[in-house]
Amino acid sequence: MEAVVCGIDPGLAITGYGVLRASGSQPPTVIDAGVCRFDVKGSLESRLVAIESDLDAILSENTPDIVAVEQLYAHYKHPRTAILMGHARGVILLVAARRGIPVRSYAATQVKRFLTGNGRATKDQVQRAIQATLGLSEIPEPPDVADALAIALCCSTDSDATAIADLRPMEPMEVVE
Amino acid sequence: MEAVVCGIDPGLAITGYGVLRASGSQPPTVIDAGVCRFDVKGSLESRLVAIESDLDAILSENTPDIVAVEQLYAHYKHPRTAILMGHARGVILLVAARRGIPVRSYAATQVKRFLTGNGRATKDQVQRAIQATLGLSEIPEPPDVADALAIALCCSTDSDATAIADLRPMEPMEVVE
Repeated sequence: MEAVVCGIDPGLAITGYGVLRASGSQPPTVIDAGVCRFDVKGSLESRLVAIESDLDAILSENTPDIVAVEQLYAHYKHPRTAILMGHARGVILLVAARRGIPVRSYAATQVKRFLTGNGRATKDQVQRAIQATLGLSEIPEPPDVADALAIALCCSTDSDATAIADLRPMEPMEVVE
Repeated sequence: MEAVVCGIDPGLAITGYGVLRASGSQPPTVIDAGVCRFDVKGSLESRLVAIESDLDAILSENTPDIVAVEQLYAHYKHPRTAILMGHARGVILLVAARRGIPVRSYAATQVKRFLTGNGRATKDQVQRAIQATLGLSEIPEPPDVADALAIALCCSTDSDATAIADLRPMEPMEVVE
């Protein structure tokens, strides 16, 4: 069982991404990771166009088997922010789905619990867990990269998700470009 | 001053659209109107792919000068619904913006006040106002079409928005396809 998983931490100013190769027998390895930055003075729609273009390039280059995206929390203190984030997340799901790449969503608490055993772990605890699990010499920066790698790690151990990756060569999904 | 305005009422099951030709001297006329229906048993991402494809075809056919979309209300009783709607709205803004079509947002209360003088008008009052303003023999059905036409009507009288349409031949926006 081997799968390339792309984790995405969606944002309208910065979107983090982290691509891992996961195999059952060895620790996951980082293939690619980074952030896309968007002009915070630009309109919402111009940023969505930038997200589409940047993410499409990342998926084209890394050809992941699965894309894992953080679930938005419905009880945000700032509902307007959550709705705006929904716009970015919608474009991210679109770009993955029209390439025929299955999408998985994980709640932030689920990702934290997987990495540290505690759904309410601090940012610092999560970052150190990522560093240890991936054997990195430094903590990934900015935090958006660490969050994206955390989502990818969580997905890479999700047997439901990686089973999809195993099935893909036998049951290719339609790719709409 | 003449502008073709496409109003959109975003939804993940049904998205309504209404395209009007507005001119300063005459009542607006309906060029096109209808709904796109999405498989409610389909995944969120598969519906977003369908929204992209259907809306792109509508914009390609009608070549509007402006796209007007209802603003999502940040204080929904159901924040999860508002976030999901944000996904659809994000794809709609993306499809318009990458064709270089300016996007305008209007709050539901603003649309109702424009059509009836009352920001808390009932659905029935709004539908009858649309029927009268556009000189239609029947109330547009389903309600999603009426809502989309209402947003387009509101935008067609917004001098800021239609001024953009006037400027477009002189200042074409970059079209990213």
